[in-house]
Amino acid sequence: MRPSGRPPLELRPLSIEVGYAKHAEGSAFIRLGDTHVLCTVSVEERVPPFLKGTGKGWVTAEYGMLPRSTHNRMDREAARGKQSGRTNEIQRLIGRSLRAVVDLEALGERQLRVDCDVIQADGGTRTAAITGSYVALHSALAKMVEAGVLAKLPLHDQVAAVSCGLYKGTPVLDLDYLEDSDAQADANFVLTAKGGIVEVQATAEESPYTQDELMALLDLARKGVEALILEQRRVLGL
Amino acid sequence: MRPSGRPPLELRPLSIEVGYAKHAEGSAFIRLGDTHVLCTVSVEERVPPFLKGTGKGWVTAEYGMLPRSTHNRMDREAARGKQSGRTNEIQRLIGRSLRAVVDLEALGERQLRVDCDVIQADGGTRTAAITGSYVALHSALAKMVEAGVLAKLPLHDQVAAVSCGLYKGTPVLDLDYLEDSDAQADANFVLTAKGGIVEVQATAEESPYTQDELMALLDLARKGVEALILEQRRVLGL
Amino acid sequence: MRPSGRPPLELRPLSIEVGYAKHAEGSAFIRLGDTHVLCTVSVEERVPPFLKGTGKGWVTAEYGMLPRSTHNRMDREAARGKQSGRTNEIQRLIGRSLRAVVDLEALGERQLRVDCDVIQADGGTRTAAITGSYVALHSALAKMVEAGVLAKLPLHDQVAAVSCGLYKGTPVLDLDYLEDSDAQADANFVLTAKGGIVEVQATAEESPYTQDELMALLDLARKGVEALILEQRRVLGL
Amino acid sequence: MRPSGRPPLELRPLSIEVGYAKHAEGSAFIRLGDTHVLCTVSVEERVPPFLKGTGKGWVTAEYGMLPRSTHNRMDREAARGKQSGRTNEIQRLIGRSLRAVVDLEALGERQLRVDCDVIQADGGTRTAAITGSYVALHSALAKMVEAGVLAKLPLHDQVAAVSCGLYKGTPVLDLDYLEDSDAQADANFVLTAKGGIVEVQATAEESPYTQDELMALLDLARKGVEALILEQRRVLGL
Amino acid sequence: MRPSGRPPLELRPLSIEVGYAKHAEGSAFIRLGDTHVLCTVSVEERVPPFLKGTGKGWVTAEYGMLPRSTHNRMDREAARGKQSGRTNEIQRLIGRSLRAVVDLEALGERQLRVDCDVIQADGGTRTAAITGSYVALHSALAKMVEAGVLAKLPLHDQVAAVSCGLYKGTPVLDLDYLEDSDAQADANFVLTAKGGIVEVQATAEESPYTQDELMALLDLARKGVEALILEQRRVLGL
Amino acid sequence: MRPSGRPPLELRPLSIEVGYAKHAEGSAFIRLGDTHVLCTVSVEERVPPFLKGTGKGWVTAEYGMLPRSTHNRMDREAARGKQSGRTNEIQRLIGRSLRAVVDLEALGERQLRVDCDVIQADGGTRTAAITGSYVALHSALAKMVEAGVLAKLPLHDQVAAVSCGLYKGTPVLDLDYLEDSDAQADANFVLTAKGGIVEVQATAEESPYTQDELMALLDLARKGVEALILEQRRVLGL
Repeated sequence: MRPSGRPPLELRPLSIEVGYAKHAEGSAFIRLGDTHVLCTVSVEERVPPFLKGTGKGWVTAEYGMLPRSTHNRMDREAARGKQSGRTNEIQRLIGRSLRAVVDLEALGERQLRVDCDVIQADGGTRTAAITGSYVALHSALAKMVEAGVLAKLPLHDQVAAVSCGLYKGTPVLDLDYLEDSDAQADANFVLTAKGGIVEVQATAEESPYTQDELMALLDLARKGVEALILEQRRVLGL
Repeated sequence: MRPSGRPPLELRPLSIEVGYAKHAEGSAFIRLGDTHVLCTVSVEERVPPFLKGTGKGWVTAEYGMLPRSTHNRMDREAARGKQSGRTNEIQRLIGRSLRAVVDLEALGERQLRVDCDVIQADGGTRTAAITGSYVALHSALAKMVEAGVLAKLPLHDQVAAVSCGLYKGTPVLDLDYLEDSDAQADANFVLTAKGGIVEVQATAEESPYTQDELMALLDLARKGVEALILEQRRVLGL
Repeated sequence: MRPSGRPPLELRPLSIEVGYAKHAEGSAFIRLGDTHVLCTVSVEERVPPFLKGTGKGWVTAEYGMLPRSTHNRMDREAARGKQSGRTNEIQRLIGRSLRAVVDLEALGERQLRVDCDVIQADGGTRTAAITGSYVALHSALAKMVEAGVLAKLPLHDQVAAVSCGLYKGTPVLDLDYLEDSDAQADANFVLTAKGGIVEVQATAEESPYTQDELMALLDLARKGVEALILEQRRVLGL
Repeated sequence: MRPSGRPPLELRPLSIEVGYAKHAEGSAFIRLGDTHVLCTVSVEERVPPFLKGTGKGWVTAEYGMLPRSTHNRMDREAARGKQSGRTNEIQRLIGRSLRAVVDLEALGERQLRVDCDVIQADGGTRTAAITGSYVALHSALAKMVEAGVLAKLPLHDQVAAVSCGLYKGTPVLDLDYLEDSDAQADANFVLTAKGGIVEVQATAEESPYTQDELMALLDLARKGVEALILEQRRVLGL
Repeated sequence: MRPSGRPPLELRPLSIEVGYAKHAEGSAFIRLGDTHVLCTVSVEERVPPFLKGTGKGWVTAEYGMLPRSTHNRMDREAARGKQSGRTNEIQRLIGRSLRAVVDLEALGERQLRVDCDVIQADGGTRTAAITGSYVALHSALAKMVEAGVLAKLPLHDQVAAVSCGLYKGTPVLDLDYLEDSDAQADANFVLTAKGGIVEVQATAEESPYTQDELMALLDLARKGVEALILEQRRVLGL
Repeated sequence: MRPSGRPPLELRPLSIEVGYAKHAEGSAFIRLGDTHVLCTVSVEERVPPFLKGTGKGWVTAEYGMLPRSTHNRMDREAARGKQSGRTNEIQRLIGRSLRAVVDLEALGERQLRVDCDVIQADGGTRTAAITGSYVALHSALAKMVEAGVLAKLPLHDQVAAVSCGLYKGTPVLDLDYLEDSDAQADANFVLTAKGGIVEVQATAEESPYTQDELMALLDLARKGVEALILEQRRVLGL
């Protein structure tokens, strides 16, 4: 039924490569089917002005797509001189999602800058970016613990994200680009290992959806995120 | 319990003034407590390039805040030379929400440009903008029907939006600025008169929320939107 | 003779609502016929770099138009990423006009930021903005005196502005949009209660005008400004 | 009394070099004391969109200053990525001033682009730019007449400009930078050979000025412009 | 002697992966030591305005670095809103280098857009980008020949590039980042398989270099490029 | 053979006017045939952040062209809101070339800002800018020595630049615009009085060139630069 031939509940093949980027304090290259995102974490010993002197840290994210990561070449945002509304929306979402599991006080006055760059896109780049970024972040923080910079990991939960959608009337997990283009509703769920919800963004594409459909999507997402969280733990050696 | 003293389920005082703007094809000035948004609709006899020759129309939105609509003055986006990520996110949401109830084919190859300008802000500006914009849009379309430009209203449903949140553990409707600043979770719901869901954006502020809390917020939102939809109908003379 | 049917010397109906904006330190909503401008004043306890350490304060202004304040929708300057030459010219004029009546030394090292936002436009927005801004400014300063921040009002005069023009050969006061589009000359006068001239900007549209015509326009402007100044005093309770 | 030692009515030494720029269709390098402005005219066989198909032409101007034309180096506007408000104001003034003497219908559907670049600045750059631009424009148009592109010069008058000001209470002509910095009022007059007024911009710097002072400045300007117009005619061989 | 321990004439380990990017018409991922650049080619059936109607095609390039491709995180150019001078210089060089071996007439009125994105940087990114881009370009053109769009490969030579430098007085091949930071002169050579020179850019860092040193660098470059060209041929199956 | 009729080894007529700009600390107006560039030097008592506290100074350059310096009018970069890639490339080259002969430590913590503005263009503007800038720089530094700010000239060599090219198979010196448009290869050489090479940029336009041709161009350049250096010395009174 799905263009990809996957059953409704099947994730695309997943791999997460920790430490892909030589220079970054933490990094992960996540591949979910043909969606490939490189996530790096840079640790900075300073915080944005609104946090100066508070003893609290910050996590922020930026997102970009290589111009030919997509089916048709997209204009390079650096050449156009501004980031699109979509880029802004996504990088704000990634930042919020990560902050929801980080103990910013325990982090201390430093900033973790997360960069998510889509090397290849086939749907679900923002959720893959969140899932990959958590791994990069965890790995950067673990190094800081090892180095004695932090006493313990300033994390109180683990986060991952997945997209779901209504495709020809059926709730399906982990939309690829073709499925996404044709879905009636498209939802992104950011969930934690402890079962909490960090963010729900569920958008009707052409006509509204029902509350039951929203619940069905959330159920699918829980199952998908469970699998993502297990893989995150495996690659992090937890 | 709430800083505003309102019971959890109480909306702020609401008024919608239709036809506030002399020059616009449709307009509404919505006041929800101290949040005041002017919504105008401009009809253009051309569509964006990707729709040329398709016979379909489009609805798009822009959003802005007057620099001193807020408690502290914000920089003017025109002077800074770019719109913030937040502005982009909101104007995309408004556009999507309105398109979900408009029959773009029946509209024909024309574009409705919606401008939502916040004259005064006290929380909930994006949801007020959606609720007000629907009235402005309906009123612009009604004039086009009257003028014989359209055979009938190209609308298949009616849309309104409201914010809800978890405030000190309790789900409350229609957060004002003070309540919003202190909420654990903050959700915006765009719902239709027929009971459909157009968009859910539910964000944990500090710690994740539960599925039950999400449901409780959605219940509140349904009640709030019902009231908003009644008022929309009243001022539109439906 | 005039499209508006007004005699040459008649101002459009005028109202000035003091304190319109809840959050601003001072505000006035001025309506001159169908030209409506919201003026707010924000008090900042710091000055631009060139005044640091001088003990002197500053008054600066910004100006904007809502996209559909005009007959046809204008592009939003924030979306275009820059302010037009016209906007720049107007906001510089407003700032200069207000500074001409403020005692910047008595103000002390603080800055008054004036925002003039055109909610609806029908000609004469820049002069209405000056007239309204004076009221907003006076009202912000009066509060500072009440609060003991200032010993007395740092104002040595009162300022208002009006446009005049040569319409079909006749000097007329307070041009509306239609009249302005068709005028041979268009002049803006910024005058004070004590009879001083702060600024004259008199522009030939198609062919030059004579010195006598300039004098006739200035005479009209004096009468118009007298009426504006009386109304400013009335709404300020002076 | 004046820092320059000049009597109130004395212009600075003036020279206008016609045809200074090899590539431009018309050009003039005007030197008024230490203020040196290169004015070029480029003829384009197309008009801005609002004039297409009307048979009318257009004259537009741009203005710039070399970064070290001034006493202290100014940032290069191209490097800062935008033109200042002052630049915008000046280039609009130059364009308006020239259009006031050009018969745009006789010009036909073509555009004259005037570039005024300040090579060295010592006060009065905008008025020098207008005076020099007229010469460049006349010379470009004369060539078009010679070449048979135009039947006759599409000019119905001749224009020049000068600044005046109140310096220590005395009206003086043609302010240099030092005098300008210290003037109580600063006025720019754009006048024509036939005695018409194209533009008056008279600005109080610290305190308002009187109507008599305005008249005195206008008288001075008339005398100054007379001299400028004679020199324009001389270098144009009229 | 070199920080890398390599003899003066040794290239870093090289690999070129053809077809790395799923969506692009041609692609190559080049790794030269720790410098990794993804090169993609997008074929567009239109040319820049200056070539319309000439029957000739065009090759253009863009270049970017991931923010954390470098030792310390660099600002994202898309977020800063403009590309640096260095980026501009490099993308112009890549475009020129490729055009030197493409027969633009045989290509026909189409444009090849080359994107070079640095995934990891350790010196020599611009030369690696040229070497990798040639492979991506060849592979895109080969597909067009296979598909019958082109009769034969519109290439008259093969191009590759390498950097050399004077390091502690000795000419060395293929500088890595550490060596580059400390070199007295830094040169980039773009050479062809037939022995032609496409571009020499040889820059003294602190003190000028001699003609003999320039020749020594060029000799080294010839040897390096020979090896690169062999590897290009191997991975392209030539 | 050359469009200019010059023998291959002939420079265009050269003049350098020292002290052309009244306000700048150093300046030179260089005319090489119809290429005219005004070079000014501004001395600033501060350095870029990366040099603070190091005791070292800096030399940086900016480059611009007047819109009608060229055969056809170019857009004004300030109006377009950004500098082109070409502009960036050139100003970086000028800065590097000058720094190669300045002893930055002896300069002390101050910055020399060089502005090169092309008043008229006929090919070779970047090399003329370097040659002229050296004179402006030398003259600014000499004044600082005279004023006792510097103990001696912080210069260890003298620099000038010239372009050469292959025109119809023959190496020729100092290309003008027509020759440059038609050259097979185009090279810029920055050389010093002591015979050192500061920069070689040699670019094939259509087909690669040979090593012998590169050598022939370098020989020509040496002769051209010798003449330029003599003239620099003459106008500087050395």
